[in-house]
Amino acid sequence: METEPGVYSGTCPARALLDRIADKWTTLIIGMLVDAGGPVRFTELRRAVGGISQKMLTQTLRELERDGLVVREMYPVIPPRVEYSLTPLGRTLDEPLRALSTWAERHMPEVRKAQDAFDAARGEGRSAVAL
Amino acid sequence: METEPGVYSGTCPARALLDRIADKWTTLIIGMLVDAGGPVRFTELRRAVGGISQKMLTQTLRELERDGLVVREMYPVIPPRVEYSLTPLGRTLDEPLRALSTWAERHMPEVRKAQDAFDAARGEGRSAVAL
Repeated sequence: METEPGVYSGTCPARALLDRIADKWTTLIIGMLVDAGGPVRFTELRRAVGGISQKMLTQTLRELERDGLVVREMYPVIPPRVEYSLTPLGRTLDEPLRALSTWAERHMPEVRKAQDAFDAARGEGRSAVAL
Repeated sequence: METEPGVYSGTCPARALLDRIADKWTTLIIGMLVDAGGPVRFTELRRAVGGISQKMLTQTLRELERDGLVVREMYPVIPPRVEYSLTPLGRTLDEPLRALSTWAERHMPEVRKAQDAFDAARGEGRSAVAL
């Protein structure tokens, strides 16, 4: 009944899914879980992913769990231990997401050069208008 | 002077760049510009990328231009014509970003199944608590 014309449609479920996976936190969390090679505690994830808030990490992990990409296991010890690991489906996302991280790290010098040129042109543009 | 330890550092420029490229609008705009194979007008882009607001499209295109991924050309005709195309650097992003769109479209059925199971388990959990 429902038509699913793909990610270019604002109402297609695949678009909502793209929105969750095309995300820096998803990229970093999945990359870290792959590199760990096994279950990782919440606190370790928080330490590894610089700058993520507790709230954002909780929310992102919950979405990844709901999407079937991450498994959450809680051990009834004191204090309770909660660990996260990737599902086989989650692991299939590693390759495309890692390609993005690698791209960002590799091309940062070219991007910075472009930014400097853009900002300089804008600065000159403003001066010209002011004259 | 500046240390750049990569995308896992919250303060590294590569992280900010990852934030801009790991984004659904960037993914859709760059994919559309590649598919068009040449310059595309603002209005065409807006039509092709379902659900994007004029403000978000303007802002994303401006960031892509500043990062050296997109070229903006304005033709002094009446009404003014503004066209966008990819730079060679922008084209190198097509492969990883398209892999994300493809992943979202291909794996939507599995993800939906996982979501249904997650929601059902939560529903049951709530009922159990209520009993």
